Amino acid sequence: MVQLQLQKNDCYQDMKEAAILSNQELNNCEDKTQNMITIKGIIGLIMSQIDDDNQRAVISLGMGDPTAYSCFTTSHVAEEAVAHTLSSAKFNGYAPTQGLPQTRMAIADYLSHDLPYKLTMDDVFVTSGCTNAIDIALCILARPNANILVPRPGFPIYQLCATFRHIEIRQFNLVPTKGWEVDLDSVQALADENTVAIVVINPGNPCGNVYSYQHLLRIAEIAKKLGIVVIADEVYGHLAFGKNPFVPMGTFGSIAPVLTLGSLSKRWLVPGWRLGWLAVTDPTCIFKQPKVMERLKKFFDIYGGPPTFVQAAVPQILEKTDNVFFDKNINILKQTSESCFEGINKIPCLSCPQKPEGSMAVMVKLNLSILKDINDDIDFCFKLAKEESVVILPGVAVGMKDWLRITFAVEPASLEEAIRRINSFCHRHAYQPDRNI
Amino acid sequence: MVQLQLQKNDCYQDMKEAAILSNQELNNCEDKTQNMITIKGIIGLIMSQIDDDNQRAVISLGMGDPTAYSCFTTSHVAEEAVAHTLSSAKFNGYAPTQGLPQTRMAIADYLSHDLPYKLTMDDVFVTSGCTNAIDIALCILARPNANILVPRPGFPIYQLCATFRHIEIRQFNLVPTKGWEVDLDSVQALADENTVAIVVINPGNPCGNVYSYQHLLRIAEIAKKLGIVVIADEVYGHLAFGKNPFVPMGTFGSIAPVLTLGSLSKRWLVPGWRLGWLAVTDPTCIFKQPKVMERLKKFFDIYGGPPTFVQAAVPQILEKTDNVFFDKNINILKQTSESCFEGINKIPCLSCPQKPEGSMAVMVKLNLSILKDINDDIDFCFKLAKEESVVILPGVAVGMKDWLRITFAVEPASLEEAIRRINSFCHRHAYQPDRNI
Ligand SMILES: Cc1ncc(COP(=O)(O)O)c(C=O)c1O
Ligand SMILES: Cc1ncc(COP(=O)(O)O)c(C=O)c1O
Repeated sequence: MVQLQLQKNDCYQDMKEAAILSNQELNNCEDKTQNMITIKGIIGLIMSQIDDDNQRAVISLGMGDPTAYSCFTTSHVAEEAVAHTLSSAKFNGYAPTQGLPQTRMAIADYLSHDLPYKLTMDDVFVTSGCTNAIDIALCILARPNANILVPRPGFPIYQLCATFRHIEIRQFNLVPTKGWEVDLDSVQALADENTVAIVVINPGNPCGNVYSYQHLLRIAEIAKKLGIVVIADEVYGHLAFGKNPFVPMGTFGSIAPVLTLGSLSKRWLVPGWRLGWLAVTDPTCIFKQPKVMERLKKFFDIYGGPPTFVQAAVPQILEKTDNVFFDKNINILKQTSESCFEGINKIPCLSCPQKPEGSMAVMVKLNLSILKDINDDIDFCFKLAKEESVVILPGVAVGMKDWLRITFAVEPASLEEAIRRINSFCHRHAYQPDRNI
Repeated sequence: MVQLQLQKNDCYQDMKEAAILSNQELNNCEDKTQNMITIKGIIGLIMSQIDDDNQRAVISLGMGDPTAYSCFTTSHVAEEAVAHTLSSAKFNGYAPTQGLPQTRMAIADYLSHDLPYKLTMDDVFVTSGCTNAIDIALCILARPNANILVPRPGFPIYQLCATFRHIEIRQFNLVPTKGWEVDLDSVQALADENTVAIVVINPGNPCGNVYSYQHLLRIAEIAKKLGIVVIADEVYGHLAFGKNPFVPMGTFGSIAPVLTLGSLSKRWLVPGWRLGWLAVTDPTCIFKQPKVMERLKKFFDIYGGPPTFVQAAVPQILEKTDNVFFDKNINILKQTSESCFEGINKIPCLSCPQKPEGSMAVMVKLNLSILKDINDDIDFCFKLAKEESVVILPGVAVGMKDWLRITFAVEPASLEEAIRRINSFCHRHAYQPDRNI
């Protein structure tokens, strides 16, 4: 902004002091959020390490957004559905608070397809992406002294939303040697009478896990025992390409009430469309009481929801997208996940404990003892960006210091090139640069 | 949801009790929101009064959404801009947290056009409609014991957002006999050291006011004296068709810091597109401190913002929309506002103290003493809907009991028909149905 050289007003001196004071007061919320790492924030910092006069193309394995690569374009069905609702000029007005009825119905049908019971439109709320669904889920669960159980490694938006809503976060571990399964003992140890929910991300970001039916059942049983809700983040729903098929957590909704969160972002490769949902998959109506549902509705008045014409396209998108489109993407992800896993495990200082079987990302352990001048995961990522123009996410951003998160939803050739660069970076920084392993 | 007849789990009995308890505890926030009227909510209730076997078309003068009428379709420029960015497939990925740079730049230029200084993209955040901008503005101003000053009559989303953010609302009056100007004395009387902002809606919803340069200047001076921020809701910006031109509040940003909120919703007739903005119009940087701006940014991580392809269309929309489009809409609104004002003032039990000069709505006073079987504004609206299939908003929804809010952004023929029906309804319910005035 062009600075006008006006004298500052004395009356606002108070405002400044109050603002600073309030930052300290606000239940430490402000301070907590200020120290918090967001994926977008840290990727921005890493990007800024890359010299502008760099000769090589930047390869980003940082964000779960593959849309920059031509092999990951959305289906014609989806694009044409939106083009059609837009040009119809029928959907330029406000949508009802919880979403268009036809959109809610279509999402209910889509989800019911894989459930042992049927959802109705009343169970479904249309959200601005899964991010907004997370925020809404936490907000309706908020109460004084509440805490929620979230996985480590996990997805940092949970922490950020919880902090803004004054909900305490308690992290349970995912076990790398057991396919990143939930450490069920630690879940039970963490929970108390103020625990309101457990978050399960499946297929998993950042680990690439796809949980078995049995494991999900066990999680539901523990949730039942603790009397808590399961928040099932299925933003990567159906993106499974290993031994386990994708089983929606709502399958076990009659054991413990499940809030199922999802979006078009990943399966349709349109994270920028901001179209998601929150479904109350709770066939025995344990959670779904009139008061809670009323509160949910009221909440949506503040949001306004996604654009009406995008909502209006959802029935076409969910019903008409060809399996050929899904299969093609699954095949590419299977291929890139495998070449990522193999390539990484050939690099001495890196190891991947578990072959990814779903989603778009995998966790990689960093062996710092082999490296001569790398302090930690952040240092690794900053130097890698500067020297090799490759962007990856330091594990600390997802709760695992001295690990890395690598997104493999990248064009195969770019992924190979990136792994070559990571390899030469690691050799250059290793104690014995030329040793063979 | 199809109910499976499973026995409810005892462990969840606690959850239910806790949920009910927490509703009472949560700083009474829950109770407060539960008693709160939302415009969408009450319109829904009124709509439900209308018999399905009704012979006549329903005419809604209830919501500020004229898109159902063919005379209020958006410009080809806007529609084509979005169609273009959609089909380019370049904008299916995530946008940066605060919005696409070109979008922020275009909004900064658009707003600067009417300001005595220039905004830069750093001053602008892209939001999901003006609704989302309101929520964000209140959230960054929230601190313990904070209160904000809002107009009565006003826009109920302010109350709802403030309640969710634990901000106290204090209402100052708009004076119907003075063109709904702010009662500046009552503003000063209401403010104390915990007051953080005053909300000014101009052009005004629900009153149809357009404030003069002088009146806005006086508001800015009072804000300066009180050391508070002005939240300038300009969602109806440029929709002025009376004696006063539209003057953006940011004009006075060097007197008091202004948060300018706006959207494409009203001027471009696309409320369903959910594309808005929050601009920090604060050339002397009283409010715009690094810490506050940091907090604002963090906040956007939770939202994700509007769809990237809609954002990407904004530069075209703001720069290329023809004046012919704007003029046409202004002319229709001028015509419908006048015929609404005249028509209403001919009905004995109704009076319109001030001819609307902007926005899409006007406040109408109900003289209950003339009516034999109408209890209040809500009763009037429910019976009117039932008997005449005309929907209007009871004043209580915007803070004025026994007033009505009428939206005149309606096709001229429908508006005339609606006024005829309101007239016959009023005569039918008057003590002397056939008297002439
Ligand atoms: C686990 C998880 N949940 C939620 C989201 C947000 O999804 P959306 O883009 O639909 O907001 C992401 C995005 O990467 C994610 O990885
Ligand atoms: C005064 C006022 N502010 C904000 C809004 C919300 O605008 P948007 O549709 O851009 O969210 C409205 C909508 O009617 C309004 O009247």
